[in-house]
Amino acid sequence: MRISIITLFPDMFEGFKQTSIIKRGLESGVIDIQCVDMRDFTLDKHNKVDDYPYGGGAGLVLMCQPVVDAIRATRTEDSLVIMLTPQGKTLKQEIAYELSTQKHLILVCGHYEGFDERIRDYVDMELSIGDYVLTGGEVAAMVISDAVVRLVEGVITKDSHEDDSFSDGLIEYAHYTRPRVFEGKEVPEVLFSGHHENIRKYRLQSSLEKTMKYRPDLLKNRVFTKEELKIVEMIRENEE
Amino acid sequence: MRISIITLFPDMFEGFKQTSIIKRGLESGVIDIQCVDMRDFTLDKHNKVDDYPYGGGAGLVLMCQPVVDAIRATRTEDSLVIMLTPQGKTLKQEIAYELSTQKHLILVCGHYEGFDERIRDYVDMELSIGDYVLTGGEVAAMVISDAVVRLVEGVITKDSHEDDSFSDGLIEYAHYTRPRVFEGKEVPEVLFSGHHENIRKYRLQSSLEKTMKYRPDLLKNRVFTKEELKIVEMIRENEE
Repeated sequence: MRISIITLFPDMFEGFKQTSIIKRGLESGVIDIQCVDMRDFTLDKHNKVDDYPYGGGAGLVLMCQPVVDAIRATRTEDSLVIMLTPQGKTLKQEIAYELSTQKHLILVCGHYEGFDERIRDYVDMELSIGDYVLTGGEVAAMVISDAVVRLVEGVITKDSHEDDSFSDGLIEYAHYTRPRVFEGKEVPEVLFSGHHENIRKYRLQSSLEKTMKYRPDLLKNRVFTKEELKIVEMIRENEE
Repeated sequence: MRISIITLFPDMFEGFKQTSIIKRGLESGVIDIQCVDMRDFTLDKHNKVDDYPYGGGAGLVLMCQPVVDAIRATRTEDSLVIMLTPQGKTLKQEIAYELSTQKHLILVCGHYEGFDERIRDYVDMELSIGDYVLTGGEVAAMVISDAVVRLVEGVITKDSHEDDSFSDGLIEYAHYTRPRVFEGKEVPEVLFSGHHENIRKYRLQSSLEKTMKYRPDLLKNRVFTKEELKIVEMIRENEE
């Protein structure tokens, strides 16, 4: 998979590309990430990419020409052009899965007050990473790249993301590692039993407990299995 | 405001600190960002910070000792310790506002399969930036820092974030800048009228239209003003 990031701040991605999952993807050749500097496309003699908003107001607005030309120069037949905006569809794990099957993502990062409205006509979709405001699309582009790249085949093993939070609609179960006792806090006994079926049950219960406690909204439309229903009832009884 | 980021990958933040709003905050002295390397706190002779999960399973789990010691060394009386996890409260613009009034935020970034469950007892709150899975908390820490820093007094002017999407519960209105016509697409006439009241009304309508179209969920519990209600009715009539 290729990811092209159209941005005014390509330097922001240097540290990001050199660490973690992205580095692993780049080194294995499964992933290619390229930053495209919007400013290289300006036809303005002062290299301007933004200007004051018509009708007044604070901040500067990204102009159509450099952004649209950068998109045109980067787009191929296989590209999905995604503009990062607050009004976009909110990123969820399902969307990350869908995007991970694409050949070429183009992420267009705004900055300052945002894009000239007319630029929207030149993109395939708009994405937001949540209901908060960022100075620019750059950190959002990192979030989307990270969430997507780890799901691309060949980057990490499937086992590593099958248990992920949200992948099966639940928060992930509690993890423990050495030592067995830390400042008086013990690891649950069952994890030492070597009894795989009991460990699986314990983890499913942990997952359901966490989701009921922290994110009951995730369970609203869930179709529970019989086993899950039994556990949910038991958790509710214990609470009373 | 001071932000301390406890992480295994301090280099990831270099580009982030040298651009954009964070740089402005750092240069003006309003903000201070410090990365704390978790690995500096390990007591393990091989510098290990993670280990296999008890009970089996893929991935490695961050151990209590280095993380808890890093938190203890960083925490002061004024600190709010935030752990970045999928089960945390989801970041919203209101939370960003609340956090922007704090003196010292400590953001604890997990990596790999996550934290040993017992670490949760040593933090004040858990935050998530959305319903998707990231390789680590690092990009989430950038998102939170960016969203919060731009709201800290003295970083950008208040005008620049009063119109933000989500700040008043609506998506921001359409922006336009030069040229007046781009590839046949024109800027709305009203923006050239110089009539401030009409421009304000146009923008409120644009904001409501966008929110109704892209994020009707944001309007569910909204208490509309009389003016907004009139506009909403008008938009609905035009749709029919």
